[in-house]
Amino acid sequence: MSHIQTYLINGSFDQTISPFDRGFAYGDGVFRTLVMRDGLPENWPQHYQKLVADCAAINIVCPSAELLMSDLQQLFLPDGLPEDQLVVAKIVVTRGEGNRGYTPPPITAPMRVVTKSPMPQYPDERFVKGVHLHVCEIRLALQTKLAGVKHLNRLENVLARMEWNNPSIADGLMLDSEGNVIECTAANIFARFGDTLMTPSLHQCGVAGITRQHIIDIAHTIPLKITIELFDLKKLFAADEVIICNSLYGAWQVKTIQEKTWPKGKLAANIRAALKA
Amino acid sequence: MSHIQTYLINGSFDQTISPFDRGFAYGDGVFRTLVMRDGLPENWPQHYQKLVADCAAINIVCPSAELLMSDLQQLFLPDGLPEDQLVVAKIVVTRGEGNRGYTPPPITAPMRVVTKSPMPQYPDERFVKGVHLHVCEIRLALQTKLAGVKHLNRLENVLARMEWNNPSIADGLMLDSEGNVIECTAANIFARFGDTLMTPSLHQCGVAGITRQHIIDIAHTIPLKITIELFDLKKLFAADEVIICNSLYGAWQVKTIQEKTWPKGKLAANIRAALKA
Repeated sequence: MSHIQTYLINGSFDQTISPFDRGFAYGDGVFRTLVMRDGLPENWPQHYQKLVADCAAINIVCPSAELLMSDLQQLFLPDGLPEDQLVVAKIVVTRGEGNRGYTPPPITAPMRVVTKSPMPQYPDERFVKGVHLHVCEIRLALQTKLAGVKHLNRLENVLARMEWNNPSIADGLMLDSEGNVIECTAANIFARFGDTLMTPSLHQCGVAGITRQHIIDIAHTIPLKITIELFDLKKLFAADEVIICNSLYGAWQVKTIQEKTWPKGKLAANIRAALKA
Repeated sequence: MSHIQTYLINGSFDQTISPFDRGFAYGDGVFRTLVMRDGLPENWPQHYQKLVADCAAINIVCPSAELLMSDLQQLFLPDGLPEDQLVVAKIVVTRGEGNRGYTPPPITAPMRVVTKSPMPQYPDERFVKGVHLHVCEIRLALQTKLAGVKHLNRLENVLARMEWNNPSIADGLMLDSEGNVIECTAANIFARFGDTLMTPSLHQCGVAGITRQHIIDIAHTIPLKITIELFDLKKLFAADEVIICNSLYGAWQVKTIQEKTWPKGKLAANIRAALKA
């Protein structure tokens, strides 16, 4: 009856997460969120490459791509879902079990967890008309040793997401402690100035998502130049167009942030098309 | 056969941690580490008060003291250990299960996990002669919304602890990103200047331990004045004596940090005596 299972731990439907797992104890691990289409992960090479890099950033040996792909197939293939039905997979890799205390065990056996969740039912309006963003009060702390990594220490995102309840707000814009625009709680951000697409540098904080990287890679096909640098909210408000992006919805046009409103633009639609091409 | 169990989840020996638990997914929870003596938690009122405060800091409703005490008794009383045998309890409270994504569920059912671990076998030398500290390369990021809270986002401590293997190093001194002395990976720190005991302010980062608070409260009995403020490594090296403290070992005299050596002092022994009184 594996089709009713919603997760797999180390390739088993019976294994459980120990309270001594360092992912649970310290957030000592990393994760990925990806779309499964017809039982296959979208953009798998990019997701796996990022998982390996994020594991390396905190000195965890990433499980092999074969092992993770086998997990995904075991959890998602028996679905018998209608064609083109999308489901969300999350892959978590932790440092595995250890004794109490911060010292990692001399030999670690990383744990891998794969979960299955429904695809969010985004309102069509967000793709057609664009989205409204909240500006979060909580600021991202600067930590160069963890910047860019999608690790399990996500309390800042949790506290940020708790700042609003209004369902008409699509996401919250997060600034760093110095006032630079960095990202949204679950998305990266791009701003167009003329023929240049600008995205915040993530060398001090933030998560470098694979859709962000994908957009950087294909920007020349739109065609737009790419600039990666830090800029503040005032600069963002001076942009011709703003979009946010992630692995689930691709890209959304930003319509309003606080008192700033942008006219209807085509950047998000163009980027979604370029991402698919 | 509960005496061989090493943990209890929501009061049950059979319950497991879900991958959808937000403590596992995001480090969305807090914890306490305490000494169990003859089956009873040391300094329980202080630990519980801090647990309640830390839960409140991230908007989790803390389980009642009665419930947690009942968990501790269930896990620790059947030991039949020799008198005065010490064991370490860890209490974790998370926001409980949620759907994928940062949005907390509208109604949360916090999860409580209690674990049992052996008391570390600290070398006598650390109590008698004092300890050597490593100065960590990784700096603590500044996040006022989480400062002082013993939450589950502890990757900075994990990375810090990975910086040394030498067993003669008792702990690693952590500075913040501005160069202020803050704490050790698993301890708070105090420096004596004449008749004044100084400890770093933890309003920007760090964990405000209950032993630190206990020392602040009883300093006048030593007698010493208390000052809470930020200071750098140079100022620390100018101190007459330095000690580190936590709930497991009480207090240790610091003997050396880098090239700085302090003569044998009595501060840690005096503080240990005052903590017991």
